[in-house]
This record gives sequence, C-alpha cells and structure tokens, in this order.
Amino acid sequence: MPESRRLVLLAGVFLLTLVNLTQSGPIALRTPEDWDNAPSFGDRLLRKRSPTVSERPGCKEGATIPPNRVNTTKRLIDLRIQMDLYNVSAYIVTSDNAHQGEEVAPHDHRREFICGLSGSSGTAVITKDAAAVWTDGRYFLQAENELDCNWILMKDGEAGVPNITAWLREVLKTDEKVAADPTLIGTTTWQRYDKDLAPIEFEPLPTNLIDVIWTTGRPPVNTEPGFILHLNYSGESWQDKVDRLRAELPKQGADALVITALDEVAWLLNIRGSDVPNHPVLLAYMYVSSTQLVLFAETSKISSPEMQTHLTGVTQRPYDRFVAELPDLAKSASMVLIPSQFVYTGGASYAVYNAIPETKRLLKPSPVLMMKAKKNTVEAEGMMNAHLKDAVALCDVISLMVEEIPKGVRWDELKVSAELLKYRAQQEVNKGASFNTIAGYGPNGAIIHYSASEETNAVIGTTSLFLLDSGGQYFDGTTDVTRTLHFGTPTAAQIKAYTLVLMGHLDLARLVFPKTTRDARVDVLARAPLFDQGLDYLHGTGHGIGHFGSIHESPTRVALGSSVENTFFENYFFSDEPGYYKAGDFGIRIESILRVIPTTFSTEFPDRFFRFQAVTLVPFERKLIDVTMLSDGQIDYVNDYYILVRQKVGAEMTKQNRTRAYNWLISQTEPLMLPEPVNKGVSIANKQVWVGIWTQLFISMFVVFKFY
Amino acid sequence: MPESRRLVLLAGVFLLTLVNLTQSGPIALRTPEDWDNAPSFGDRLLRKRSPTVSERPGCKEGATIPPNRVNTTKRLIDLRIQMDLYNVSAYIVTSDNAHQGEEVAPHDHRREFICGLSGSSGTAVITKDAAAVWTDGRYFLQAENELDCNWILMKDGEAGVPNITAWLREVLKTDEKVAADPTLIGTTTWQRYDKDLAPIEFEPLPTNLIDVIWTTGRPPVNTEPGFILHLNYSGESWQDKVDRLRAELPKQGADALVITALDEVAWLLNIRGSDVPNHPVLLAYMYVSSTQLVLFAETSKISSPEMQTHLTGVTQRPYDRFVAELPDLAKSASMVLIPSQFVYTGGASYAVYNAIPETKRLLKPSPVLMMKAKKNTVEAEGMMNAHLKDAVALCDVISLMVEEIPKGVRWDELKVSAELLKYRAQQEVNKGASFNTIAGYGPNGAIIHYSASEETNAVIGTTSLFLLDSGGQYFDGTTDVTRTLHFGTPTAAQIKAYTLVLMGHLDLARLVFPKTTRDARVDVLARAPLFDQGLDYLHGTGHGIGHFGSIHESPTRVALGSSVENTFFENYFFSDEPGYYKAGDFGIRIESILRVIPTTFSTEFPDRFFRFQAVTLVPFERKLIDVTMLSDGQIDYVNDYYILVRQKVGAEMTKQNRTRAYNWLISQTEPLMLPEPVNKGVSIANKQVWVGIWTQLFISMFVVFKFY
Repeated sequence: MPESRRLVLLAGVFLLTLVNLTQSGPIALRTPEDWDNAPSFGDRLLRKRSPTVSERPGCKEGATIPPNRVNTTKRLIDLRIQMDLYNVSAYIVTSDNAHQGEEVAPHDHRREFICGLSGSSGTAVITKDAAAVWTDGRYFLQAENELDCNWILMKDGEAGVPNITAWLREVLKTDEKVAADPTLIGTTTWQRYDKDLAPIEFEPLPTNLIDVIWTTGRPPVNTEPGFILHLNYSGESWQDKVDRLRAELPKQGADALVITALDEVAWLLNIRGSDVPNHPVLLAYMYVSSTQLVLFAETSKISSPEMQTHLTGVTQRPYDRFVAELPDLAKSASMVLIPSQFVYTGGASYAVYNAIPETKRLLKPSPVLMMKAKKNTVEAEGMMNAHLKDAVALCDVISLMVEEIPKGVRWDELKVSAELLKYRAQQEVNKGASFNTIAGYGPNGAIIHYSASEETNAVIGTTSLFLLDSGGQYFDGTTDVTRTLHFGTPTAAQIKAYTLVLMGHLDLARLVFPKTTRDARVDVLARAPLFDQGLDYLHGTGHGIGHFGSIHESPTRVALGSSVENTFFENYFFSDEPGYYKAGDFGIRIESILRVIPTTFSTEFPDRFFRFQAVTLVPFERKLIDVTMLSDGQIDYVNDYYILVRQKVGAEMTKQNRTRAYNWLISQTEPLMLPEPVNKGVSIANKQVWVGIWTQLFISMFVVFKFY
Repeated sequence: MPESRRLVLLAGVFLLTLVNLTQSGPIALRTPEDWDNAPSFGDRLLRKRSPTVSERPGCKEGATIPPNRVNTTKRLIDLRIQMDLYNVSAYIVTSDNAHQGEEVAPHDHRREFICGLSGSSGTAVITKDAAAVWTDGRYFLQAENELDCNWILMKDGEAGVPNITAWLREVLKTDEKVAADPTLIGTTTWQRYDKDLAPIEFEPLPTNLIDVIWTTGRPPVNTEPGFILHLNYSGESWQDKVDRLRAELPKQGADALVITALDEVAWLLNIRGSDVPNHPVLLAYMYVSSTQLVLFAETSKISSPEMQTHLTGVTQRPYDRFVAELPDLAKSASMVLIPSQFVYTGGASYAVYNAIPETKRLLKPSPVLMMKAKKNTVEAEGMMNAHLKDAVALCDVISLMVEEIPKGVRWDELKVSAELLKYRAQQEVNKGASFNTIAGYGPNGAIIHYSASEETNAVIGTTSLFLLDSGGQYFDGTTDVTRTLHFGTPTAAQIKAYTLVLMGHLDLARLVFPKTTRDARVDVLARAPLFDQGLDYLHGTGHGIGHFGSIHESPTRVALGSSVENTFFENYFFSDEPGYYKAGDFGIRIESILRVIPTTFSTEFPDRFFRFQAVTLVPFERKLIDVTMLSDGQIDYVNDYYILVRQKVGAEMTKQNRTRAYNWLISQTEPLMLPEPVNKGVSIANKQVWVGIWTQLFISMFVVFKFY
C-alpha cells in the first residue's frame, strides 16, 4: 500500500476515534428522559466551592447539553427524599456488592444507577444540594461523557482534588450526618471514613436507600442454580478442605472464621454458580468453626437433590440471614477471624465486622485465600489443559483475522469479542469469558482498561497494532491471555516497541529464583528493557489467577511499587504481562500465564530454586520481533517455547481438525534466527570466486589464442 | 604450565590451607598463660544440659588441648567474683562499643577479651557455672580454634541451638538476675532480652564488669586529636547542616534529637578523628534542639585553637557526661527523637533511651542519616576523585603482581594488603584503609568475610582466582572496590563463573529505573544470571558508602531478601557487588561503587528515571570474560566503561608518571569484541575461491595442452 494512502487511512481512523470518543454516551441502564435544562445543584456548587475541579464540558449555563447523558435529576430527587426521611445530610454509594469482589452483577450496579457512570470503579456521594463522583484515571473521559450536569467529577489522584471525607467536611456542618450501607463498604474503608469524618457522624443505615428508589428498570437477580464442581475438576473433597482449614485456624489465632469472598466459598465447598458476570460463583457466605459449618445461600439455588447430597454435613441458611445470625453463631467462639482487605480481595464488609462482638474480632487475610492459591495436582493439570484448549480457540480467531483482514473483510473490535466467545464455546467445558475482552486497535489499544462500545468500536486495519486481552472460564481452569498483532507491515518504531515489551516478558518468564523470593522483587526484570529506552507501563506486571474462579486471585501481585509482598509457592499461577502504551497511537501488551514449579541443579544449591512453566501456549507476533535486539537466552527461550506450542497446541488442533489455525500456528512458530552473518562472507567470497573464474578463463583464453 | 604440575600445586595449596585453618589461633590481645587442664565448667555443662550443641574439639576429658587457644580461666574467675559482688547470676558481654557502629577500637574489644574469639561478631554470656558465646556462620571455624574449653560455642542459626534468652531461661532459676552494661546494647535488643527473659530480671549495671577486671594488657585508647574537615571537602558548613536538621525535626514529630552514631556527629559538625580503626571518627555524642547544640567529646581531642574556632557556637561537654546530663538537657524538650536501629546503624543504646523521660521518647531512624546519604556536589565530586586516585593505587599494585607473579616472585595475601596501604598512601590526602583488606587466593577467596592472618596467609599462584576487596579513606571520599584476578591461564569453569558474576554486575550497573524504585527491588538483576545456572551468593548485592566516613552507610541496602526497603535519591553512593563462592576452590566478587544520577528521555516519561554513574574505574579481569556469554547491552556497557577508564585513570596515571600501571591499564581496556563470524564465511569462501582457481587452472592447462 502506498505511503500516502496509509496516511489518509491513519488520519481517518484518528478522526473517527475522536468523533466516537466525544460522542460516547450511556450504553446501559439508560432510559430516555427529558433533559432538565436548569443549572444543576452540583454544577452551581462546583463553581461556588470547588474552583480546583475543572468545569464539566457542556454544563455552562446556556450551553447545549449533550443529549445522550444519563438524566439523574429525578433519581437524585427521590434519593434526597429518602435521605430526609432518615435525617441524613450525605449518602455514600459505592460500586461494591456485599462481597467486595471485583465483579458485580448488574442488579447491584447501584452507583452506576445513581450517577450514570458505567465504569467499574467509582464512589458517588450525594448531599442535600450537591452530588459528586470520585473515579480514577481509567474513567475520566468516560465520566465526562456519561455524567450529567448534576454531578461534580472528582478526578482521583489529580492535584487539588479533595478526597471524599475532606470534601464532606468542607460542605457539611459538624452536626450533620453522613450515612451508607455498611454491607457495601469494606471494614478498613469504613473505619477510615469514620475516623476522617469526625466529628461528623458516619451512620450505618440498615436500609439501602438506592434499593428503595430503584424500582423500575432494575436488572433482575440471577436465578440459575448453583452447581457442583466434581472431584475430577476440583481434585480434593470439600470435607478434606474443611479439615485442612480447621487445622489452620488455631495457627492463625482463631477458632472460627467468616468467609465473605465468593471465590473462597466456591473453592472450599467445590460449588460454582452464575450470580456474577464472568465469575462462576454463587452469592454466599460461610461460617466455619471446629464444630460449625454453615453456608448462607439462596435456598432455591442449592435445592437440587445432587447439590443437597453434595452438601450433606453443611448447615444451610438463607443468604440474607448472614449478618443477622452472626452474633448467635459467634457465641461459642473465643476469636473469630474476619477477612481483611488483601491484594485483590476486598475483605469483610463493615456490617460483618460489626456483627462480631468486639473482643472476638481478629481482622487479617483469610487463610482460605492462601490455601486456594496453591493449586493441587488436578487443578494445576486442569489449568494447563484449559490454557491448551483456550490457545486453540484464540489461534482459530487470530488465524481467521490474518486470513480476512488483509483481504478487506471488515473486522471491528466488538466482532473480535463475539468471535472469541463463539470459538471458546466450541472448546470442552467452556463456561463463557473470564472477563470482558479488551480488544483495542490503534489508539484504542493505548487505553489500558479499554472496553469497546458501539461508540468507540474501531475497524481493525493493517497499519497499526491490535491489542487483544481475553480469557475463558472452563470447568478445568480459568484463562487470561494477551497478544498484540499486526495485520499489515509494521513500522520500525512498532517493531522496536513490541520487541522491548517481549524482552521484558521473556526475562521474567525464564527467571530461576530462590524459593524465598517475594513477588514484587522480580518485577524489575519485565520493565528493565523498557526503562532503558525511557519507557514504562503504568500497571502491575502480574496477578494471580484462580482455578475456574477469579481472574485476579490473591495473593500474587508482581508490581515494582507494590507495598504488599508475598512469596511464591509451588503451583501458584499468575500472569506475566508487561506492556507499552503510546497515547493516541497504539498499545502493546504480551501476557502469558506462568506456573511456579520446583527445579533442581547439581550445584551446591540443589533445591534452592523455583522456576516458571509456561501455561499459555500462543505464538508471539512474528513480524513485530526484531531478533537482533534479543539476547541468546531470550531467543533460546522463544524457540523452546515454540517447540512446546507446536507439540501441544499443534496436536490438539490436529485432533480437532482445525486446519486454518494449525497452518497459521506452524507458520508462526518457525525458530527465531539471527540474520546469518555467514551469508555476507559467502556473497563476498562468491564474488571472489567469480573474479577468480573469469580471470582464469581469460588467462586460458589468452593462452589458447596466443598459442593456437 | 603442564596440567600435572598445576594439580600438584592446587593440592599443595589445599593442604596448606587445611593445615593453616586447623592451626589458626589467637592473633591479637593474647598473652601466653598456663593452660588449665581441668575440664571447664562450660564443658561439663555442655555435656549435661545442651546435648544439641556438638562437643568442642580437643575438649574431651583427657584429650590434648590445642596449646594456642586463649586461656580464659582466670578471666572468668575474676568476672564471677565481680558478678557475686553485684549479686548477678549471668552477665552478657556484647561486641559493641557505646555507639553501636560496625568498627570498634581494640580498647573496647571486651567480648574478645573475655572469650578469646577475635571475630567481629559475637555475644558472650557468663553464668556462675557456664560460659557460652553466640556467633554466626562466618566465625564458626575461627571460634572452634580460638575458644578454650571453658566455652560453649553456640552456632547462631543452626538447628537445635537455643538463642541467648532461651538458654538463660533454661539454666537459671526465675529468681536469679541477668545483667549487662546498658551503654553497650542497643535499645531494641535490650528490650527484646528484657521481654524474653521475664520473669528473670534483666538489670542495667552502671559499672562495666569487664572494665573492672581487664587491668593488664588492655590496648590504650586513641590519643590523637580530632581534626576539621574543611569546606573544600565537606561542601556545607556545619551551621547550615544544623539549620537544615532543626527544620527537619518538627517534620519528624520531635523538637530535640540525640545523635549517637559516630559518623553522624562527624558529618554534622564537619569534624573527623582517629578513635576507631578504618573509620575516621571521633568518639562523641550530640544533643540538638532548636536552642541547644551540645557536643560530648573528650576535651583533649577538641582543644586545639583551630578546632575551638571551628566549634564556636557548640556547647562542649566531656564525653563521659553524656548519659548523665541527658535528663537535664531533655527538660526543655517535649519530644526527643532517639535513633533506632536501621539498616547498618545500630541506634541508641538502652542507657541513652533510658535517660530520656518515658513520655518524651520517639524511637525512629535518625534524620541525620538520611541527610548524610544524599551527598552534596562537593562531596559527590570528592567521591569521584577519591575513586580515581584509588584506581591508580589499585592498578599500580595489580600491574606489579601481573608483572612479578608469573615470574615466580613471591606474593602472599598479607603482602598484597601491605602494598595496597603503601600505594594508597602515595595518593593525595589518603588516610589509610577504609576496612581490613580481604585478599583471598584460591579456597581463601571462597570465605566471604576472610581476613588473612599469619596462619592462613596463602601464596598467590597462577592456577586459581585471587579475590581482592579493599578500600581507602581520603579527605575527599571513601572507596571500596573488589576485583577478582587470575595470574595464569584460567580454566573454562573459572571463566564461566566469572562471566556470570560480571553479567549480574553489569545488569545492575546499567539499569535505568523510576525514581520511586526501592533498593531491594533491583537486586534480582545482579543475581539472575547466576540463578539461571543454579548458583547464588549468600550476601547482599550492595550497601551505601559514606563520604570520608562509614564503609557501610545507611540507608541503601540492595538485597533480595531484605525486609527494609528504601528509595534511591540523587547522589546516593552504593556498591554493586555480586559474587560466587565455591567452597574449597575459589571466590569471585566484582564490586564497583555506583552513584545515583538523574536522566532525561524524550519520551512521555521525560523525568521519571534515575540511572547509575560508575564511580569505581578499574578494569575487569579480561582473561576471565567469555564475551560470547554477554548480551550486546553488556558488551556496550563495558566498552563505554573502558573508554571512561582510559580517559580518566589513564590521564591520572600519565600525570603521576605511573608507566607500569598505565601500560597494564591500556592492555586491559581494549574493547571487548565478539569473535567475528564473518571469518568463518570467508574461510569457507576462500576454499571455494581456491577450488575455483585450481579448477580454472586445470581447465586452462588442459586447453593449452590439448590445443598446443
């Protein structure tokens, strides 16, 4: 393609993206309502009291307000009526459900309902005459598009932006009262708010005010029942797990434990459910002591005869009775371990904490979390198998894109997500996606937590990079993989950036390290090649991953700046995902799951070391690798990895008759080779040979003619 | 040299070392005394109460006791008489002086006096009928050789070895009393002992019982006066430093500060002294508040007119009045910062802590420590200059060894130390060594904290590796450098091991990293190449270094397993010293000092990064480098480094007319080059050329003869 046409195309994509971004509006839970043209309370307050917060676009008096924003005026009026009834001057609405996990069912999107912001992270605070929402850098642009003029946007972490409690202390009088639902706020956060608000009172309201006003258009709760994860997948009976947990409790200084994290309940009892998107769990709590084993779950979801047989020995109580019955349950305990916030785990809500008598509270990380992270042999082999099947599905889609995109067949970001779901579903015991696919072409790839919408959905072209981060849930494991692709001829700058990211990815993947090493201390390996060029990526390098469970599983977090450090144990699974994001241009991320395995050497340190086993088996983007930038060790690692990819994934593709994917796989996994410098020598030498031959021919001709 | 002869030599060195090690005895502070042949108290107790502690060699009843051990029988009798007088059942003797630093004057070697162990680390505990000394792995062998049969050797960290308090609780009754000198034990240690001994009482005795009995043969205290470090070396007046410190105190939550670390007093007041070996400091304390500035030092050492002028504005009190006058000084303070133990800094003794009223104690790391670590421009340039001069001295000695050793001139480890002192003294404003040289040939090099003695002193040969770790004190800076050398033809295994260590050294040295990065998180870079081969080294990778001060300066500690982490700041200086130690064979360590400097990039992260500047400028051992193992980045770094070494050190050598060192330097700093693979191509091609030529010649001859 001529250079000029490429430029036009690039400009087109850029303009399209710009238009899309500025027009991006509400996409879910919105009903068209009349726009209230009067300047909002929040808007007036913004100008009056928070000069450091920039004015919301389209909210100047007399300005044309973007018509596609969520109108929250009536919702706020309804909420303020409730606040008056409860004599509350401010109400805090978080994004959490009662389990403080990362995924929340649409039924529980209370913060999104009240303010309109659909991003996963944010906290809304409503006072009698103002409404503000705090969110982080991932959602600034989205918030500007989705929030109407009732809302002040508080850009978390930006200079001059007050935090929630500082703002509340500014706008309230000291005799006023702030309230929230204590089941929806983690203990540590609640205690911090309480302390920072003083002398303003922070009251736990037993009634959730959003639930009172959200009467129409609310998504229903899931009604699909829970199901059993049988021993061939779980590898250990729940009875054995409970025995191990009970043996662990005294070591933790407790004789009872509450379990509030959904994946911990799921793992401990070998049960799963469909109550939360992408996360195969049942809404449930547990209480465990040496004599008690109580599951709080929706009765209808565990009523099947099989489930009842499976749960024989487990006391069953209704889900919504948990907090109310805790004081009674704790009567026989002398110390109850209450899960604290830890890495990706939110910990128990303040309502749970508050239900345990003060002298019996032991707030610390759940021991279930540490037990779960060490996969047993069946789980570990399941993870390997799930990633093998997942590689087939992913390669199937990629090979189709490679075939069609250069021919001009239209592929956009949403189509990729849909095709991935379809192809993953063709694999055995798949249960959908493990998270919302991040498929970003060109500038969209540079948005780290990008999620394509109808408004932003870009057509995938042949000039820029395509970042594809996706995963599946399978009965035998959870997958998470990112590959960055190019469907045309990459530029030198694109190749250099990709190769730098790959170098870091490989240097972490091929590390051998003492068993005592803590996760945050290996991160630098993945970043050093980027650092060297003045580049970096503003996210962690790796996260633990669950077995048919959480995509982000505690405790592993590989992050240079992390304040919490944990050692690796055998059969921990985690991601290795360095990246580089050039705003407005492209994004690169390379992510594979690694498994921690022991290793032996015939040195004086025979059993000192762990190393990582590659779990994800998908080729890197061959045309984006500058082999001359790689070290011998990096090249050897890739070539060994490719042999493995061919052996495992190749065989599976053959078994499944996936010829297109197989052919693409083979073409992508030819060994990497340095350009052969011998050729240069030979070509020079060949010239010499020809000079020699012609000279001799000339001499012989001369001789022949001379003497003939 | 033929292989057989090399083997004989190796065996000889090994046998010699073995003999030396087993015969190694007391080397200092020993006077010949009659040996008490009766089985000692400790020996009997060892057999009776501590079956887990292995029996001391040569201490079986009836065995011939090695005659060169220190006889401590009379000393113990004397001490026990004192213990009786004070009604004390056990007395703890530490290695510390009153400042809890790393270097202690011979006058203060109380623990060595009482037990005979000359190693720097150890704690002796004497009860009425037993005596035990705890020491770490570095000194196990030495302790076996030096301790007589009165002593139980407690190998710290070995299985079954009780710690001090556990042992005391075992051998004492609960109504007995343990005592120690509170000026010689750090606060945290004292509090731990106190807590762990309960209900046994732990009493601070105002009289040091060793001082009472150590009446003969005690080394005198230093009488050399202190001196001023003028502005051309210190770069900032003490008045300005005190102003900065006073401004810092409120930020630390205090309005007064005691300073107990000797290098902190020296840095703050721009004074130095000769009271401690290798450490240019004056025994002194300080008390600083917004209105008070008090120096406690031996009056005779600061009485010169120049010093008195320099110290105008500083209240001067006698050294030994410090603890006694603290309560009075603290009267006007509301909170006194008492330095806690931190990285290499021992913190205030319990006597100091105890002298401050309980409600006014704030135990935390000294702010002086953090101020001192950030060298000012004059100090930083001084450090560069000191290392430049130091490189000349070191290269002078190495080049002489390179010249003489292969010719058969005898060089042993002690001679190297002596020559280094001599050559360093030839450099401007040198003030001796910064620590006892570690010069270890062959197996001696594998002992990490080796210090050559008459008994262990090995002749340096041409078959094994020679590890040389040394440093100098200069008015303009402190140096610390390790190079590992080979004076013959190294084996492939030696080359491989050295290159692995070098790779780690280079990967840390060439790192670019975000300014927020903590020191412990970059260590893995220095170890990864060794880990990859199942190797490691059991010490940290790097330590901060002072300016004409401590060789180990807080806070920087680069150590994978460190529990304390600190961020780097501009003009921090620290060492990069990975190693590998093959017990009984050889040791490798490569150490250079690095300086933290800012760096800018024209990326989206222009000011995000620091990098390191090489401070030490001494070539690596060329014949021990396998260039094919290095990455392009590593080769480039070495070659850039060599250009710098030639420019800076070469010029200095020329200025100083040091031809031998210069010639050696140039020969060692030729650029590293990969073996040229083109040659292979050409040589193949040349063959083709010749085949072509001969073929043509044959054809032409054929033609000539045919047609002729």
